[in-house]
Amino acid sequence: MSESTTTSGQEPRPDGREPARTAPSAYAAAGVDIDAKYGAVESARAAIKASHGPGVLGDLGSFGGLFDLAAAGAEGQLLVASTDGVGTKVKLAVQAGRYDGIGADLVNHCVDDILVQGARPLFFLDYVAVDKMLPERVGAVIRGLADACRANGCALLGGETAEMPGVYRPEEMDVAGTIIGCVSRDRLLDGSRIRVGDVAVALGSSGLHTNGFSLARKVLDDGGFSLDDRPPEFGGESLADALLAVHRSYLGPVMPLLDRDLVHGMAHITGGGLPDNLPRVLPQGTAVRIEAAAMPRPPIFDFLCRHGRVAREESYRVFNMGFGMVLVVAAGDVDTVIETLAAAGETGRVVGEVVAGSREVRIG
Amino acid sequence: MSESTTTSGQEPRPDGREPARTAPSAYAAAGVDIDAKYGAVESARAAIKASHGPGVLGDLGSFGGLFDLAAAGAEGQLLVASTDGVGTKVKLAVQAGRYDGIGADLVNHCVDDILVQGARPLFFLDYVAVDKMLPERVGAVIRGLADACRANGCALLGGETAEMPGVYRPEEMDVAGTIIGCVSRDRLLDGSRIRVGDVAVALGSSGLHTNGFSLARKVLDDGGFSLDDRPPEFGGESLADALLAVHRSYLGPVMPLLDRDLVHGMAHITGGGLPDNLPRVLPQGTAVRIEAAAMPRPPIFDFLCRHGRVAREESYRVFNMGFGMVLVVAAGDVDTVIETLAAAGETGRVVGEVVAGSREVRIG
Repeated sequence: MSESTTTSGQEPRPDGREPARTAPSAYAAAGVDIDAKYGAVESARAAIKASHGPGVLGDLGSFGGLFDLAAAGAEGQLLVASTDGVGTKVKLAVQAGRYDGIGADLVNHCVDDILVQGARPLFFLDYVAVDKMLPERVGAVIRGLADACRANGCALLGGETAEMPGVYRPEEMDVAGTIIGCVSRDRLLDGSRIRVGDVAVALGSSGLHTNGFSLARKVLDDGGFSLDDRPPEFGGESLADALLAVHRSYLGPVMPLLDRDLVHGMAHITGGGLPDNLPRVLPQGTAVRIEAAAMPRPPIFDFLCRHGRVAREESYRVFNMGFGMVLVVAAGDVDTVIETLAAAGETGRVVGEVVAGSREVRIG
Repeated sequence: MSESTTTSGQEPRPDGREPARTAPSAYAAAGVDIDAKYGAVESARAAIKASHGPGVLGDLGSFGGLFDLAAAGAEGQLLVASTDGVGTKVKLAVQAGRYDGIGADLVNHCVDDILVQGARPLFFLDYVAVDKMLPERVGAVIRGLADACRANGCALLGGETAEMPGVYRPEEMDVAGTIIGCVSRDRLLDGSRIRVGDVAVALGSSGLHTNGFSLARKVLDDGGFSLDDRPPEFGGESLADALLAVHRSYLGPVMPLLDRDLVHGMAHITGGGLPDNLPRVLPQGTAVRIEAAAMPRPPIFDFLCRHGRVAREESYRVFNMGFGMVLVVAAGDVDTVIETLAAAGETGRVVGEVVAGSREVRIG
């Protein structure tokens, strides 16, 4: 619910998060437990504070979170904003009883979404809604959000935790969030510098990231699989391990490339896969040829495609098929790009090239 | 779901909204209908565009929405951010089949939440999640969001529309959003200027706004009431009319007061009511005495309290009881404040005063 106020007499929350309401008897009888909600956020308070950098005006916040762009070194820059959820991956997390990775899935997804425009993250606000407030679960989700924010140099500036009796199915929850980042106008990436002859360099995904989970769950259901099953080709991992592998953030390895102006365009491979996401940055008159075999993929993809009888073409639309992020760079910069990525601990793989065309993706 | 990409070949969406995915057969079989999702957002496109002011960099947006603070006249100001939902009011809207007001409920709630810190809204991003994508419903919600954004001088910069089979109950939806506003450092309101002897001036609510709906629904259920019932004291309105009355935005009437520096502190009366929200802006050593009878209230409050046997003290915590916003002003400025509000078409009522105390609210 949106009833988000602090308890009478409580100090204003420096984090801009407003978790608590009073717990009057009639209200409790109506299915809303405010004490539980408050406990969930309290347990994450230290992690939230730890995510705060110099931009957060901690001692002033009350109803909304306050952010000082100048203190964060972002004055005069453009803001880039994105809202997203984690899809039905959250349902699978609930099913597996693992709540700590969902926060990182969401934050990293949002970080990657604005990174493709050249932006670095400044702050994040979350929305966590549940059928019934279970403080351990919700606390784990918010701690995960806060930890992922900190890892990305991003402040968890605020959020809302909502108990919604009668809206969500029993035990279910949803998690969404909004990221605000910044980019200098002269460093804004929109793909307009992409030219025929440029090279596509891909960074690997950890698994499905946050896409294709409704289909994945259907494959599991139809095949009678359990999340605890450990297919032999998984090298000891369970289906839950493989499916809940955390969406990667590419901020660390990619930012040094942006600092050196080595990227012409970049696509975050989310829903719609390579065929839908790469064209978003392609100028008219260009297309991309991708060599699928150039990118190794976690075994979960072949498992799902085989058991779900997903055709190859469809598989590249529903899943990322191992491609987490695709960078388009000048052919002459490829070695420098790969070396710079390697210096940041990341493997960049040449997976294709820009050719003449009509903004399509040809997967070979 | 978070799979939010544009269809291959489609132009980047200038509004930063990313509604569409491909609709492969296996995916559709798993319960996700992307065409429907796309239709919902398309129907709102004109309204979204109409909300865009000079700050929106419309022709550049792709993955995230781009905002130019300088073009919006906000350069050098602090950002104020808040995320919220509309609670289970959304469930009641679904029950009544009225989807157009929920957007204004959410946007106005968020506008009011940052207005109390002196901030004006810049842009908004929404999250709309449904059990099953029904384009008419979701389109109506997003158009409502966009229209409310425009009415508040705020750009609907982006959003996510998610179909979440198996998470929400059948027919249900949830709506949440994030607002980003700005305020000059020297106009930031935090209540620190409030002194004993100041006067509380209240602006009326239209009804429950977005708080207390779980209790309201319980009262209706327990009493066997229908949303179509028209209690005689409602003057012809139905219970649905009264309960779904849109959360008011106080931006229009309050901004002229802020421009003239006439406000010492301000509280948006949301969940927790007067007793929980007013203390959030009270300095140590002060308290507020409120004369409840000084504020007329819509009849829905007495209806719910009577049929729900809600004690008086509790009623002021669960509901706003007619108080939408409370401004604290210098005693010598009261006449000017009331006149300035009247010039903006708003009735301001003197409802109490600041006294010595321990940050409590005494309702008499």
